[in-house]
Amino acid sequence: MDKFFKVKTTEEVLGIINGFNPVGSETISVEKAVGRILSADIVSPEDLPPFARSSMDGYAVRAKDTFGATESLPAFLEVVGEVLMGEKPTVRVEQGQAVKIPTGGMLPEGADSVVMIEYCHILDENTIEVAKSVSPLENVISPGDDIQAGDILLGKGHRLRAQDLGVCAALGISQLKVFKKPRIAIISTGDEVVEIETVPAPGQVRDVNRYSLMAFCMELGAVPIPLGLCKDEFSQLRNMISKGLEVAHSVWISGGSSVGTRDLTLKVFESMGDFELLVHGISISPGKPTIIGTIGGKPVIGLPGHISSALVVAEVFLTDLIGRLSGVDSLARGKSYTVKARISRNVESVSGRDDYIRVRLIRQDDDFIAEPIFGKSALISPLVQSDGLVRIHRNKEGVYEGEEVEVRLFNLK
Amino acid sequence: MDKFFKVKTTEEVLGIINGFNPVGSETISVEKAVGRILSADIVSPEDLPPFARSSMDGYAVRAKDTFGATESLPAFLEVVGEVLMGEKPTVRVEQGQAVKIPTGGMLPEGADSVVMIEYCHILDENTIEVAKSVSPLENVISPGDDIQAGDILLGKGHRLRAQDLGVCAALGISQLKVFKKPRIAIISTGDEVVEIETVPAPGQVRDVNRYSLMAFCMELGAVPIPLGLCKDEFSQLRNMISKGLEVAHSVWISGGSSVGTRDLTLKVFESMGDFELLVHGISISPGKPTIIGTIGGKPVIGLPGHISSALVVAEVFLTDLIGRLSGVDSLARGKSYTVKARISRNVESVSGRDDYIRVRLIRQDDDFIAEPIFGKSALISPLVQSDGLVRIHRNKEGVYEGEEVEVRLFNLK
Repeated sequence: MDKFFKVKTTEEVLGIINGFNPVGSETISVEKAVGRILSADIVSPEDLPPFARSSMDGYAVRAKDTFGATESLPAFLEVVGEVLMGEKPTVRVEQGQAVKIPTGGMLPEGADSVVMIEYCHILDENTIEVAKSVSPLENVISPGDDIQAGDILLGKGHRLRAQDLGVCAALGISQLKVFKKPRIAIISTGDEVVEIETVPAPGQVRDVNRYSLMAFCMELGAVPIPLGLCKDEFSQLRNMISKGLEVAHSVWISGGSSVGTRDLTLKVFESMGDFELLVHGISISPGKPTIIGTIGGKPVIGLPGHISSALVVAEVFLTDLIGRLSGVDSLARGKSYTVKARISRNVESVSGRDDYIRVRLIRQDDDFIAEPIFGKSALISPLVQSDGLVRIHRNKEGVYEGEEVEVRLFNLK
Repeated sequence: MDKFFKVKTTEEVLGIINGFNPVGSETISVEKAVGRILSADIVSPEDLPPFARSSMDGYAVRAKDTFGATESLPAFLEVVGEVLMGEKPTVRVEQGQAVKIPTGGMLPEGADSVVMIEYCHILDENTIEVAKSVSPLENVISPGDDIQAGDILLGKGHRLRAQDLGVCAALGISQLKVFKKPRIAIISTGDEVVEIETVPAPGQVRDVNRYSLMAFCMELGAVPIPLGLCKDEFSQLRNMISKGLEVAHSVWISGGSSVGTRDLTLKVFESMGDFELLVHGISISPGKPTIIGTIGGKPVIGLPGHISSALVVAEVFLTDLIGRLSGVDSLARGKSYTVKARISRNVESVSGRDDYIRVRLIRQDDDFIAEPIFGKSALISPLVQSDGLVRIHRNKEGVYEGEEVEVRLFNLK
């Protein structure tokens, strides 16, 4: 029982997980990079735009030719040509001249600004009346206005979004260095567990954890490698963990709800060469009997057998583990996963451990109400009815109806 | 100009988009279903658990044999056997008897409750002392406690998460009916636009929109089909749109920042048999010159050419379009995409249109500060620096520094 006095707090465990490193880097094409994590800063190789462009439909002019122009006292300019999209202008704008230009067109030499078409009246084929003065550079995007060569556009650890890939495309960056997706070996243990295609005999249950944990990994951009079922038997489990360490960056074993099988996972870990035990028990509920260690530097995780406990531990701790192995910038991790809500009823909790309460969110006008969903951790339906988790801190004895709580949402796209 | 007086509001456009239907249904295996949308309710075929299970390590007993038991006045019970995981118990619990049982073990006949091992003292091989009374069903999960045959577990339109796939596995549901991923054909128009591998000549720019819109689709679970570049030329654009309608469920054309090319997209739409114009202009900024229609019932979208405008329109409207085509439950759409924040400075806006302001989020203690990122919509860098959008409603003339705003986050996993 001695070890149970050494249980670690949520923060201690997150601190330990923060010590893991990304699994490696690879180069992929920009078409496939959405959601991936940059493994190197992206530095702009050139100015954007590379040339002065018009930001409006209108006429390219010399600004000072329009100074003082109004509706009643317009400036008269000679139209000497037109800029075509995608082409270098063939004319130059001299004093008193104008050149028609579309939005995005390249500013002709001599011009320093664009008058919007709304302020120009065509008098004849070669003459316009300008009813408004423009300043130099008005309606013009100058070279480098958007991005300058050498700018750091996106930092290492950034998760790539639509606009980020747009900016890469704009600069001709068609290949990107990203962190590899971590591969997670998943083992379900338990003499009572059978394949899901099987009709369980009395006393048997189907393998819930494999499918839940696979989906959890995929939601976070990791690649699950299911190794299948394992009996509560030392040498079989040891072989499976060895295999997992060969093919994956981390091995997760779930099962062992009873004390005996929990001990088996730890015994097997301890039998393997360079095992280092980092966490044996966390002061949370559900999820206390969690084991975290390393074998050959790779994180190995012993998760509780009950699916609700296993998924709470995954959500609270293994989200960050995958984040670290994936190289996600620590500031970005979890940023968007919480919403504030008011809790719909009093919830008691036990002081000295963090209680994670499952809640359903209900929109009420502009706010959210968090409705606790109770149920033993052996049940899966309460988790299915929930939208997220509320942490009741170990220094609190509960929350009161109407109190504001932070709801950590289950991964949603 | 007449048509510009018919611009629609954000709500009107979202209402129109809400009229589109899912693109179809398919059956896939549970391993691949994370993030997919159910196209039919999932009804439980059986009770879960199918048999009474212990939720603790301990001894299966008849509750009334323990009534009145305390530390000082324990009950003595005869141990007649042990339940093994995954096996049907071979013994029956008679009056005055107990059977050892692990967490998850099947309750033996005759027993109605489990005493936790912590309250049992082993006197000899065949006798325990029970120091606490239990109630009937205490520490027992009865058949159907979790789920009952016929329960609707998950509704049509639900996006599948880790726990949802767990519950399917638990019930032996290895194949799921989900909506097909919508396929979106993407066309970039503009005489000035070149492939990203190309070094643009003066006046040319690389194709930003294709890569941004592809990524946008993928973030939302749609399948982009890039058709490539198209000149501002009637018959080429018409052929490309026809091809898009053959291979995809929706066709998006971006480009045409200038009035002339904008008109071209509409002209081509109008030349195609059963085109129906639904939206020609939206009272938002940026993004006003957006066209939405249908050809043969399939949504066709004309997006502004500037990437910032195109992505704001995508974020605000096409998120919902993909949601509708994907069959996402309307309640779920967008639920997790907003956070509340205080704006860091006054922002003026034009009354009569919804202004979408790009903002960067900064954590301040428990709250977020939204810092506006300004810049012309032809620029992409402001979008790259932003975390989301704040809508300033068309009936407002701006927001004041410190005012609470709702930030719609760019899609983040």
